[in-house]
Amino acid sequence: MLDRGFHHDGSADHVSTLTPEPGETVTVFLRTPKDHRTGVHVRSTPDGEPHFTEAVVDRETRDEIWWRADVVVRNPVTRYRFLLTGHGGYRWLNAAGLHDHDVPDSGDFRLLSYAAPPAWAADAMVYEIFPDRFARSGAQRAYPDWAVPAAWDDPVAGAGPLTTVQLFGGDLDGVTAHLAHVAGLGMNTLYLTPVFPAPSNHRYNASSFTEIDPLLGGDAAYRTLIDEAHRRGIRVLGDLTTNHCGSTHPWFTAAARDKDAAEREMFHFGDDALGYEAWMGVASLPKLNWTSERLRRLMADDAESVVRRWLRFGLDGWRIDVANMTGRLRGIDLTREVAARIRHAAAEENPESVLIAEHAHDASADLDGDGWHGTMNYAGFTRPVWSWLRGPEVRLPFLGLPAPIPRLGADHAVRTMRAFAALTSWRSLVHSWSILSSHDTARIRTVCGGDEALVEVAAGLLFTLPGTPMVLAGDELGLEGAWAEDGRRPMPWHRPDSWRTGTLDAYRRLATLRRDEPALRHGGLRWLHASADALAFVRERAGERLLVLAARAAHDPVRLPLGVAGTPRHGGPEITPAPDGTVTLPADGPAFHVWRLENSR
Amino acid sequence: MLDRGFHHDGSADHVSTLTPEPGETVTVFLRTPKDHRTGVHVRSTPDGEPHFTEAVVDRETRDEIWWRADVVVRNPVTRYRFLLTGHGGYRWLNAAGLHDHDVPDSGDFRLLSYAAPPAWAADAMVYEIFPDRFARSGAQRAYPDWAVPAAWDDPVAGAGPLTTVQLFGGDLDGVTAHLAHVAGLGMNTLYLTPVFPAPSNHRYNASSFTEIDPLLGGDAAYRTLIDEAHRRGIRVLGDLTTNHCGSTHPWFTAAARDKDAAEREMFHFGDDALGYEAWMGVASLPKLNWTSERLRRLMADDAESVVRRWLRFGLDGWRIDVANMTGRLRGIDLTREVAARIRHAAAEENPESVLIAEHAHDASADLDGDGWHGTMNYAGFTRPVWSWLRGPEVRLPFLGLPAPIPRLGADHAVRTMRAFAALTSWRSLVHSWSILSSHDTARIRTVCGGDEALVEVAAGLLFTLPGTPMVLAGDELGLEGAWAEDGRRPMPWHRPDSWRTGTLDAYRRLATLRRDEPALRHGGLRWLHASADALAFVRERAGERLLVLAARAAHDPVRLPLGVAGTPRHGGPEITPAPDGTVTLPADGPAFHVWRLENSR
Repeated sequence: MLDRGFHHDGSADHVSTLTPEPGETVTVFLRTPKDHRTGVHVRSTPDGEPHFTEAVVDRETRDEIWWRADVVVRNPVTRYRFLLTGHGGYRWLNAAGLHDHDVPDSGDFRLLSYAAPPAWAADAMVYEIFPDRFARSGAQRAYPDWAVPAAWDDPVAGAGPLTTVQLFGGDLDGVTAHLAHVAGLGMNTLYLTPVFPAPSNHRYNASSFTEIDPLLGGDAAYRTLIDEAHRRGIRVLGDLTTNHCGSTHPWFTAAARDKDAAEREMFHFGDDALGYEAWMGVASLPKLNWTSERLRRLMADDAESVVRRWLRFGLDGWRIDVANMTGRLRGIDLTREVAARIRHAAAEENPESVLIAEHAHDASADLDGDGWHGTMNYAGFTRPVWSWLRGPEVRLPFLGLPAPIPRLGADHAVRTMRAFAALTSWRSLVHSWSILSSHDTARIRTVCGGDEALVEVAAGLLFTLPGTPMVLAGDELGLEGAWAEDGRRPMPWHRPDSWRTGTLDAYRRLATLRRDEPALRHGGLRWLHASADALAFVRERAGERLLVLAARAAHDPVRLPLGVAGTPRHGGPEITPAPDGTVTLPADGPAFHVWRLENSR
Repeated sequence: MLDRGFHHDGSADHVSTLTPEPGETVTVFLRTPKDHRTGVHVRSTPDGEPHFTEAVVDRETRDEIWWRADVVVRNPVTRYRFLLTGHGGYRWLNAAGLHDHDVPDSGDFRLLSYAAPPAWAADAMVYEIFPDRFARSGAQRAYPDWAVPAAWDDPVAGAGPLTTVQLFGGDLDGVTAHLAHVAGLGMNTLYLTPVFPAPSNHRYNASSFTEIDPLLGGDAAYRTLIDEAHRRGIRVLGDLTTNHCGSTHPWFTAAARDKDAAEREMFHFGDDALGYEAWMGVASLPKLNWTSERLRRLMADDAESVVRRWLRFGLDGWRIDVANMTGRLRGIDLTREVAARIRHAAAEENPESVLIAEHAHDASADLDGDGWHGTMNYAGFTRPVWSWLRGPEVRLPFLGLPAPIPRLGADHAVRTMRAFAALTSWRSLVHSWSILSSHDTARIRTVCGGDEALVEVAAGLLFTLPGTPMVLAGDELGLEGAWAEDGRRPMPWHRPDSWRTGTLDAYRRLATLRRDEPALRHGGLRWLHASADALAFVRERAGERLLVLAARAAHDPVRLPLGVAGTPRHGGPEITPAPDGTVTLPADGPAFHVWRLENSR
């Protein structure tokens, strides 16, 4: 058992409310082993000063003591941790784990009194669509000059002059036509990469934020898609570039043309090579200047702002592109203010909307505020999972690192997942997206060296760990891709023989499992085991407990003192305890098992 | 060797400048073992996006390879870390240590392009004086009504109704008269707890910020003290309560008297029990409201503001009381803005001034900005040192914890010191105060159970680790005290027989050592060993290396692959390497040893 049987997390079993109001007193619950009978305090730091409250025993189960103590949510972010001094010991428990020495507060548990994300968000399962590559409706449209038309089965130009201009012609009616596939997979939320007009197939260089690209079918097709999706109970998220727009956008062309233009303040003009700041120096992506009052109005504050108008049109939220750089430039750091501004606008327009921030390294400084609800959790999920499950022969670059994906043990992966999770609230963790692949990465099948069993393990983690599963369209069919653009392959609707049906079945079953088991969406997380080739954890809520075992290879049997039997929910045989209560788990691999444990309370 | 021979820190050997300008390119140097010959990158995150630069070999010494790479100080706080992928490995080195898996950015090294602290601050050794208890000049003064006069040899009333009103009558001329003692001890900076008029012996409840307490000799005595100190090359720091003032202060009396008073906005009046916010609910300490423009002006911005006028009078800086709560209340968190505002005012008035923030837990969120230069490092120094060196039978409370000081090994202490140091820049670490005792804690002699040898080990760490040593007056004489108020004992000037001369001698020799060895003030820090009873580290700068060994008890001999001999600078015999280069250090304890190592370059 990690943390020697001491446990707390931010889930419903362990806090009296997930949505505290400012000033509210929250009861927090700590679980300890049965032999830890004295010396439990909770420490919070109201207004910056440590404050201790003694915990009392709330109840005892067969295996545990549940302690309770009160924490006043004095500040919008209220941190707390447990001090364990019973039996001559001196230990702290916080979200980073159990410590036998003093540690900083950065890993403390956190309660937030900011307005909570909409309730649906914790149940979301997101399906990402790159519109040019998902499906064609068959509508005939004139292609713009920049585009190099491709037939649906043409190979993607993953690198070179064709990469951004090769147009396959997927459109929004094509998406609408395949909503049954999305629903059948168990996904309840669509995330479409940008649909604004832009001179590229990825459309991250918008030339307008006020209409939907006619090449995709325009506003009418978007209307149909959103309505049809909503009719099926599927929500739809847009993709907004808050860091930049395209150099053909009228904001920028006006600003570039005339030093005195009202739009000039919306960008960072200067003396450098380009004459203006641009995303990574790419001339077609001029960086937006959030010190500009005009930008703030046009993007967020005004009734007709970009953020607002499309939420009013029907969007259920935004994925925010390059959120990590938005509002940041040299001495300027407005990222949290921008996030709060956009959140405020979005909440006014649609209180049920979500905001998810793109961020590929440590997003913790930008979360837990009144802005983004979560991040794309590349750092705390994708990288550790890739590192653990990558094919032994795979030599793929690693999300921007000048080195291939390392091959690390699950013990390493779990340390990384815990370290990142510890720096944010449980709320932000749950609402961040767990990702195996995106349009910006290699495909998980390729990462796993083509091994379908490893892909199933990866998908298993995707659907059973805390965090919102996000599936890149085509992953469920086993599409390949060694890097971002290489993975943007058209969906092979008409070639079902090419589908990896085992993978498709695994995704369907795992998504269904998540849908059917509230503990997987709302339960706590308790790590039980992590060795090189296997890891195990429990998700639990209101007495329902699911035990998960993931293995990348055959491994030494994992023995856990569970004391109860388990019924398979995915993979695995029944498990039963030995007379001493020990349960021995299967040692096969690659394998992914989920059991529902008998209730021992 | 901790970190397996990989090393970097923020000291002069490892960065091309300690005071980079915005946008400047800084060369950073990484040391690796001789067998690590490929795959070194440095990662920074300009404007929030990771950026990698390949390092090249700068030079080789007998034992090490020195790599160099450039980091652009794009943002005011520029974080960086090293990626080590040579020889099939995958490791990160940041200020938190060497990691074999991905870790968050919070422990990354940091370069700051904010204006640097004044140069003298890194050489400071601070002597703290609690004016009522330091020395009497003999001047006869009428005592105010609230005071209960005490004779100099009376026992202090450490707890009870007398505690804050028992007045021993120390004054500023008394301090001036003993400057030779301060200088003789090697201290070059005085820090006096508040000297403003206040109805208590601690004077943290100021009734005025515009004059010096007449009971202390008034402005004239302060003038004399500052001038005499400066004449001796001793700087003088004040103590400012930015979180609150006294309830007898005219700001508060005017505000309390009249809802329409201009001063009303300077406090937080409300409906709670007291009718206004106060420090920890203590009625005599009404909390200041930093949303008030008037407060900002009177405290910082105006020419006659509190911050400015006393710097102009001659102070060399301020210690900021309750900095951790200043500007924080429920939904308000202005602490960093207040710090920057005060810094701005102080720098305008005296560019050579310093600001040091009181903070007893994790101050990292408040440092590394344009505000406080450092903190009182209770969390990253005092607590680990106390935990390691406390007397085996000592049962003292632990800086606010509901538990006595635990007894932990040096391995635990070093982990804590590193964990806290990793969350701030090297600059903030160096300018933070290392503290064994203060007027707010037990005395180190009492913490050590009266064991003078343990006190010498503690003092050894105080004067040899990075950070500004701060000595509470009387510690060097072996005064006792089991908690804050109990330790505020009058200096026994007239009873030299009561002085612990061994302790006094140790403080003098250690302060002299620090003064004479630039590596102790400006050198890097490399941890070499940490076990339960002993720890060892090297401070080094420009080829000068000092090896430090501290032991709380006799211990297994520490063997280090140093390859060179060492000459004792404190304690210890000569040390010489065995034919294989190994040096065996003395195994005695409690003991504190410092050697100057031969140069191996």
